[in-house]
Amino acid sequence: MRLSRFPLSTTKETPADAEIVSHQLMLRAGMIRKLAAGLYTWMPLGLRVLRRVETIVREEMNRSGAVELLMPAVQPGELWEETGRWDKFGPLLLRFQDRHERNFCYGPTHEEVITDLVRREIRSYKQLPLNLYQIQTKFRDETRPRFGVMRAREFLMKDAYSFHLDHDSLAETYQVMYDTYSRIFERTGLHFRPVQADSGAIGGSVSHEFHVLADSGEDAIVFSDGSEYAANVELAPTLPPTRPRPAPAADMTTVPTPGVHTMDELAASLDVPLERCLKTLLVRGTDTPVVALLLRGDHSLNELKAEKHPAVAAPLTMADEAAIRQAAGCGPGSVGPVGLDVPLIADHAATVMADFVCGANRDGEHLTGVNWARDAGEPQPADLRDAGAGDPSPDGKGTLGVARGIEVGHIFQLGTTYSEAMDATVLDENGASKPVAMGCYGIGVSRIVAAAIEQNHDANGMIWPEAIAPFTVAVVGINMNKSEKVAAAAERIYQALLDAGVDALLDDRDARPGVKFADMELIGIPHRIAIGERGLDQGTVEYRGRRDTDNQDVAVDDVVDHLLARLGQ
Amino acid sequence: MRLSRFPLSTTKETPADAEIVSHQLMLRAGMIRKLAAGLYTWMPLGLRVLRRVETIVREEMNRSGAVELLMPAVQPGELWEETGRWDKFGPLLLRFQDRHERNFCYGPTHEEVITDLVRREIRSYKQLPLNLYQIQTKFRDETRPRFGVMRAREFLMKDAYSFHLDHDSLAETYQVMYDTYSRIFERTGLHFRPVQADSGAIGGSVSHEFHVLADSGEDAIVFSDGSEYAANVELAPTLPPTRPRPAPAADMTTVPTPGVHTMDELAASLDVPLERCLKTLLVRGTDTPVVALLLRGDHSLNELKAEKHPAVAAPLTMADEAAIRQAAGCGPGSVGPVGLDVPLIADHAATVMADFVCGANRDGEHLTGVNWARDAGEPQPADLRDAGAGDPSPDGKGTLGVARGIEVGHIFQLGTTYSEAMDATVLDENGASKPVAMGCYGIGVSRIVAAAIEQNHDANGMIWPEAIAPFTVAVVGINMNKSEKVAAAAERIYQALLDAGVDALLDDRDARPGVKFADMELIGIPHRIAIGERGLDQGTVEYRGRRDTDNQDVAVDDVVDHLLARLGQ
Repeated sequence: MRLSRFPLSTTKETPADAEIVSHQLMLRAGMIRKLAAGLYTWMPLGLRVLRRVETIVREEMNRSGAVELLMPAVQPGELWEETGRWDKFGPLLLRFQDRHERNFCYGPTHEEVITDLVRREIRSYKQLPLNLYQIQTKFRDETRPRFGVMRAREFLMKDAYSFHLDHDSLAETYQVMYDTYSRIFERTGLHFRPVQADSGAIGGSVSHEFHVLADSGEDAIVFSDGSEYAANVELAPTLPPTRPRPAPAADMTTVPTPGVHTMDELAASLDVPLERCLKTLLVRGTDTPVVALLLRGDHSLNELKAEKHPAVAAPLTMADEAAIRQAAGCGPGSVGPVGLDVPLIADHAATVMADFVCGANRDGEHLTGVNWARDAGEPQPADLRDAGAGDPSPDGKGTLGVARGIEVGHIFQLGTTYSEAMDATVLDENGASKPVAMGCYGIGVSRIVAAAIEQNHDANGMIWPEAIAPFTVAVVGINMNKSEKVAAAAERIYQALLDAGVDALLDDRDARPGVKFADMELIGIPHRIAIGERGLDQGTVEYRGRRDTDNQDVAVDDVVDHLLARLGQ
Repeated sequence: MRLSRFPLSTTKETPADAEIVSHQLMLRAGMIRKLAAGLYTWMPLGLRVLRRVETIVREEMNRSGAVELLMPAVQPGELWEETGRWDKFGPLLLRFQDRHERNFCYGPTHEEVITDLVRREIRSYKQLPLNLYQIQTKFRDETRPRFGVMRAREFLMKDAYSFHLDHDSLAETYQVMYDTYSRIFERTGLHFRPVQADSGAIGGSVSHEFHVLADSGEDAIVFSDGSEYAANVELAPTLPPTRPRPAPAADMTTVPTPGVHTMDELAASLDVPLERCLKTLLVRGTDTPVVALLLRGDHSLNELKAEKHPAVAAPLTMADEAAIRQAAGCGPGSVGPVGLDVPLIADHAATVMADFVCGANRDGEHLTGVNWARDAGEPQPADLRDAGAGDPSPDGKGTLGVARGIEVGHIFQLGTTYSEAMDATVLDENGASKPVAMGCYGIGVSRIVAAAIEQNHDANGMIWPEAIAPFTVAVVGINMNKSEKVAAAAERIYQALLDAGVDALLDDRDARPGVKFADMELIGIPHRIAIGERGLDQGTVEYRGRRDTDNQDVAVDDVVDHLLARLGQ
């Protein structure tokens, strides 16, 4: 492509309303333009990247045996009523009526439509398994769309839905999709991790998220340094400690702590580390008015985990001040396990504390030198906190680290939730009617573009992995509109690259070299060949990779081979 | 593709609610499935055809120098208010409000959005000309969606918009688009015609439609047998007659015609041909209460042409009975030009009539043997009727024929209608601000699929042109699940075709040969190779083109070369 014929519109100013770097750079590079809140036009530069991602997704989905179709974006409300989601989905679902006042929505997802299709098309187990996908525009009416295409209202998704006679077949296709997703993200050239995930609102049980790793990621994930284990930080279990509880060494002593209400205040006033303090939280119990949840002072309660404990009433409810006073005889700042007559449930890490500090169950007083068994009875051990860096990996292999990620893919084993609600059945080998088992598999195609930038940028702009770069190499003619020699060499090299199948961009604009270089860095072209009169006089041109710190002089006749050798490295 | 892994769902029954053959065949072949009125899922088979058409359109648009972008489907109502179309567009425009109660629509077209983009991005004539296009889903909330994807509510469009400093530049790009559209439709392998067209509701002046010719087409178009001239039948001018008016031969005579109200009744009651009868229509005039429009009895008034006549008041309004009685002294069934004191405007063909029949301006009476000049004064000649078969071509070359067509493309010179309404200006060479001149260019991508079927089908099903066929060749193994020999040969030929770059479909289903052949004919695969034991024993397989009437025995080792030689013929 000749840049003189390509509408590129870059700017140096960082747009005021763009909060994250991908949004800022996409606007500065002219990849997108805002039409309204959460609605973006993909400008020619941005669309080239989007299409590259889309092509990788399509090729790998086809290779997996999935078959592409295309469902309407507009969906009848009746189908959503069958699954109960017309009411449940809330205002994220953009609803409207057509001219005949029938209810429709702009689909944020297609479980209802595909299940309706399959219940009409598929009669027999012989037609299964079947994995159907589409790459299509979806809509979520976000309250506060932000972060550019990272959380837009209108966005491009790949969504696949698989159908099976039984769970084994579902599990098999689920694994194929897991592998396919891994290949897709490998091919994009991004650092990513599949992580175990909560399946959230879509329902079902087994589910994995695929995260592009970036410091700016919204989600915290833990991963093992000794295995493939990775999980959403909220979901990763913590293991019982392997080291034994130390024997008591101190005597239990009451200390006055007037005005102390928080763990930090307690540790500071007694000058002990937070991990020597015990946190006692009273919550509503299943069989008792309250139960005590006990954690190390430096640990936070994981509410999802606590809520699943049989002694804890769901939904998790903190005891109010009256209930605390009734159970402990003091306010919430001084509660502790000593002499407390409620069930004691201690996080694994808290069960091996010794000589610790805790509330005295008297306002303005705490205890030091406290020990389980001797002073406070023996608590029930449980997993009550987020996993964190340094914890042993739940699979027993290695130690956990924490990273931040951007969710770009999500796969679910839905089971029969939708097929039962919508009566999608097939006949099995014995002629019996069975609800089909379903999986669903999403990739945020437009979101990947933003995530790639979050992961790959520097002070000068974006740095595209070759596989999804808008162009592979920029050929920059320095003052080429003034020098016939430069123009001829630039044209020759550009043409030779095209002939070699390289997607080259010729910067043939009548602009200063500094402007051209800055633009090529801002838009993140992975390779650059600069051609100037001075170099040509020596028979050389300058090569520079986008991550390189220096130019490299290359003989003008060798530069195409030089570039071909660099590609894919 | 192996058919055993491809969800094909054919049926012999013609669906009751499908009125036209393309809709019937697309349903029978399982290319589409209806989700709701005017909303269709493109099944895998149909999507393959849609994508082929899309690819041809994209390649030729890129070749023309147009640059692809992607605008949101959802558009803010504010922009439509700027051009006045929020009110004007009517209920075809699907309107809704987002969660914040702001007005939006699902775009049926993108003039507003692209003009808004260009007014913000383009400042200088140096950035022009610019031609931007997208291939995208659009929505028109039709009152009565019908004919399947031919007139769906949600459909796939290619829409392009060009921007220019002046009209000359617009005319140049318009010609490039005209040529590009011709290449696109040539490449699809369809018979088509570009025709001069009325620009309808979009505004502007010069415009051409591209029609796929098919007997079932909604639009009548006239074309010359001696030149490239073609036009919408309503728009083609008719020329003044070249033959002179015959001299009067009969005397004017009054005849009683009780109960005669129509031309047909008149011709029948007097036993004269319709073309000897004169039709007199009184309509509201510009300077007179009524004017008389005079046509040969076998011709129909073209209202668009009549309305443009300076003596006729716009909008065209037929005189009511009271006005007729006041002007002619009789009811509408007996009006004629003799003694009628209103302006007489006669269609060219009517000006050379002689010894004709017309109303006597007395109820229940007509005149025969009437002649212009001698009896009825001399009328003003004008072009008042549709052109028809046998008329001379308006460009003076050849004679017109009439064909029916399906509109699949439309190009317009919009001029400055939108840029003026939305204040989209650029600075010219002298630094003066000028509204940009615009062109717009649409192709109904999904509609082409249906039009191709209307043009190419027979009693057994569809007949795809190779360029847009879902698969190029079907390899049918006869009883291949029972014969290892057949299976081996079929697999070998299938693989050899794939290796040669041919998009082959292997029918490896466990089904009877008749079922397989019927399916391959129904879905219209252009070439078929059938492999059976009996043939293999003789060293042959059967080749058959979809339009062939007989099978052809081909040596099994030659069949790939045989097919390659047939491709593109």
